[in-house]
Order: sequence, then structure tokens, then C-alpha cells
Amino acid sequence: MPFSLHELEHPIVQAPMGGGASTPALAAAVSEAGGLGFLAAGYKTVDQVERELAEVRSAMSAGVPYGLNLFAPPGHGTGKAEVSSYADSLRTDAQAQGVDLGDTRWDDDGYGEKLDLICEQRVPVVSLTFGCPAPFEVSRLQSSGSAVWVTVTTVGEASAASADALVVQGVEAGGHRGGFDDAHPGDVGLLALLQLVQAAVDDGLPIIAAGGLMTGRGIAAVLACGAMAAQLGTLHALSRSGNGARSTGHDEPRRSTHCAHPSVHGPDSPWHRQPVPSRPRRRA
Amino acid sequence: MPFSLHELEHPIVQAPMGGGASTPALAAAVSEAGGLGFLAAGYKTVDQVERELAEVRSAMSAGVPYGLNLFAPPGHGTGKAEVSSYADSLRTDAQAQGVDLGDTRWDDDGYGEKLDLICEQRVPVVSLTFGCPAPFEVSRLQSSGSAVWVTVTTVGEASAASADALVVQGVEAGGHRGGFDDAHPGDVGLLALLQLVQAAVDDGLPIIAAGGLMTGRGIAAVLACGAMAAQLGTLHALSRSGNGARSTGHDEPRRSTHCAHPSVHGPDSPWHRQPVPSRPRRRA
Repeated sequence: MPFSLHELEHPIVQAPMGGGASTPALAAAVSEAGGLGFLAAGYKTVDQVERELAEVRSAMSAGVPYGLNLFAPPGHGTGKAEVSSYADSLRTDAQAQGVDLGDTRWDDDGYGEKLDLICEQRVPVVSLTFGCPAPFEVSRLQSSGSAVWVTVTTVGEASAASADALVVQGVEAGGHRGGFDDAHPGDVGLLALLQLVQAAVDDGLPIIAAGGLMTGRGIAAVLACGAMAAQLGTLHALSRSGNGARSTGHDEPRRSTHCAHPSVHGPDSPWHRQPVPSRPRRRA
Repeated sequence: MPFSLHELEHPIVQAPMGGGASTPALAAAVSEAGGLGFLAAGYKTVDQVERELAEVRSAMSAGVPYGLNLFAPPGHGTGKAEVSSYADSLRTDAQAQGVDLGDTRWDDDGYGEKLDLICEQRVPVVSLTFGCPAPFEVSRLQSSGSAVWVTVTTVGEASAASADALVVQGVEAGGHRGGFDDAHPGDVGLLALLQLVQAAVDDGLPIIAAGGLMTGRGIAAVLACGAMAAQLGTLHALSRSGNGARSTGHDEPRRSTHCAHPSVHGPDSPWHRQPVPSRPRRRA
């Protein structure tokens, strides 16, 4: 049986936080406490991801679910036609010389290898940011036992996504925006975006709400709005298991060019003056 | 007894919508249906406001509460010192000639006269946009029987406001932003702003949430987040009692330079393709 959000004791997902903020210890602590912990595959080698998967599993009881975030397959940039055309112009000469032109590479994050690893290791939940895999890749992940979540920041992305669940990320999100078009991410606040997405997609499609959720009241709000869970990054990064100091300010490495919302997450935010939970409560 | 939000059968406030979108018929329909209808005093003469107050009362049962929105006392612009200094330089000559220099006027919206009218007519709820009145004016309104609400778009405004309740307006709001500084209104989404304001003000201070609320789920969300009511503008403007056609696009006269959020309220919004309630249900 693939993972269902109904399995969670607490409707709380730890945001993956690529770039060092999330750790296997944090993911395991959250999952063991009844939420859903997440690892981030982005920026890491396939070997690193494999080690972290082993680490998170060894830190948890058997069968406790967890997730892994994967950067979506890279696009081909605006130069695809030009590069192909140039390669074509060389092909006859290359064949005459018995030389292989090779394949054009557009990916520096090992997407294909990571996908193979996920399928091999049967990761319970795979969330995608920066795009949606092709339907045959979604099917392949599902067949190997993974629930596939896609991160969306606009109604258009939500409508286009083929997934088991949508992570709906409002403009308040503290990390990079996870939308399909990094140059033009959605700019709508979470609560408005939830209502807009709900009007556009099937009622039965589970939604995980993300962006600016820092309190129990905020979590209650998105659940009342129909989300099945709340995804929290900054608050988890501030916990003892998270790499908080590296992740809550603006020092985090970013694939996105879009900054965190300074008035929610910046050093003047009231959250930085409040005590934060040091460690999730463990299940009895 | 001054008005309390607990009196409402439905925790729904009709946004005042200055500029023609709100009408006495709409305000009366909302209040009679168990919400709180609002008139807008801004842009109108004192006589017009007095007529509308008479009209809304004559359309409702005695004792049914309603509200009136008032633009806050105007500031003095950046030229106050220059104007005063210039007037001072003329004063000796003017006195020698027996000529009165007059007073510098910074208000073209009859703030003082409207305040007198509100006190005289004992309007149940007065909401302010674009600033907060001086404490003695708030006390005067309260003494004459009005509950005083102040619209805020930032944590700083919320902390500075002296009021019986705060209208917390997220960046998604469809009309002009109602913050204290029209040039620099808050840019935080409603759900994040609610959490930030709640962390900054007294727990007992009632909050009315505004901005991008278009569904029952959206209303449920802000109530779950601790707001006592939801303030809705666009949805009411689209109703049969509202001047919808004039108010939902970008043709509405605006005191603010800040546009409505196009992806929530614009012509491509899914709300414009959905049936809207034609008239609130009346109480039995």
C-alpha cells in the first residue's frame, strides 16, 4: 500500500529544505513523533542521498514513513534548438571520422540516477520541486511503491501536475519557491492560493499547505481550509535536530533567485524572539 | 452596550468598499441576514453619508447593527514645515493690512464633520482605514456608543492601533490597502499576517480577517486561526445588492495607488466563472 496522509498521527510534514537545513536526524525525529520527516536530494550526489536514506531508516522503527524531495527533471533552457542544430551540422563530419558527438547534458543534479535510487529503495513519499516529472516517470515511482507529491505555486501548475498529492506553496514560504518556472513563481498568499487551487482541481486530490505556517493556529487554519496536512520548514529548522543557524536567515544556498519573505522569516520576525520546540514529542 | 462580534449570527462582515461598490441596500441585506453590513463614508459629502445612514436604518429592523467606514484623519504631507514657514513670513504684513491668513487645510474628505455626524447618530461600528484616530477621538466615538475598528496591514500598525478590534488586511485584499502608510502598505499574505499580529497584540483583542476570502473554507480557515469574523468585499460586490460591475475590476476609484491582486480578483480568476450568491438568506 502506498503512503496515505491518513497514516500520520499529526498532520505535519517537515519541509525538505535543500541546502543543508534538513538532516537525517531531523527527518527521523519528525517521523518518529508522528509527522512526516523529509530528506532533500537536491545539491547532493547520489551516494550522499543513499547514505542519508540508510541513516534515516536506521534511526527509526521499521515501517515508519518518511519522504525525499527531488528536484524535477531539468528543462532544456532556451538554447536547445541552437545546440541541436549545431550538433546536426557536425554529424556528417563526425561520422566520417568515426567520432561520437555525445549527448547534450542539461542536468547537474543527477536526476536520472536519483530516480533509479528512489525506485530501488522504495522511498515511501517523493516530493518534487521545480516541476513535474513526465507521466511515465510518475507511474514508475508509483509502481515502485512511492507516493508522488508535486509542489505548485500557481493554479496553472496545480492543474498541470500529475501526482498523488499537491504541495501548495504560498508566497510566504521561507525557502526557495518550488514552482515549475523559477523565473516566474506564483505570488499569491497561501490562503488565497489554497482556495484558488481547490476550485481548479479534483476534490479528492490531497493538498499539503506550505508557506508561513509558524503556529498551531496557522496549521488549524489550513486544515479548516481543506488541506490534509501542513508543511513547515523554518520552525523545524529552528529545532535542535535541524541545522537552524544555517537555514533560517538568508545564508542558505538557493537554486531559486527568489528570496524568503523577510517580514515573516527575517531577523526582525517575532518568531526569532520566541521559544521554539526543541524536539518533537515521541510516540508512546 | 457597544457592539460585540458575538452578536452576529454569522461571523461575516461586508467590506465597506468606498468608491461606489457598497450601497445601503447591500449593507442592510447583509446585516438583516445575520452578518454585519457596512457603508463607506469616504469620497462622499457629509450630507450623502447622512442620507445613506437614514436609508440603511429604514431598510432594517430596529436595533440591527451595521457599520460605517471612515477614512482616518489626514496627515500633513511632507510640505507642512514649508507651508507653515511661508505663512509665518507673511504674518506681519497680513496683520498690518488686517487680512486673515486662514488655516492650512489638509483634508478634502470632511473628516471632522463626519466624525461629528457619527457621534450624533451613534453608529454601532466605525471602522477606520488609512490610519488611526487620536486617542481622544477614539474615546469620543466610544463614549457616543460606537465600537471602533482600525484596519492594519502590518505588525507595526497593529501594535500602534488603539481600537476595540483590528481589521487585519492581507496583501490579497481586492480593494485599496487600508494601512496607515499608503505609500508603503504591508505586503504579507493574510494567514502569515494573522499569526504575526496575534503574536504581537493582546490575546483578547478581537480580529477581523480580510483579504482574498472567497469561500466557506477560506472563512473557516481564518476562524480556526483565531479571527472572530471574516471581512469579504469582492464576493459581496458581486451580489445582486452590490454595485458589482463597478467594483470587481479595476475601474473602481482608488485612493490607494496599490492595485488589487490580479490573480485573485482579476477577470481570469475562477470566481468570475462561478455562480455567486445572489442575496444573503434572511433570518426567520
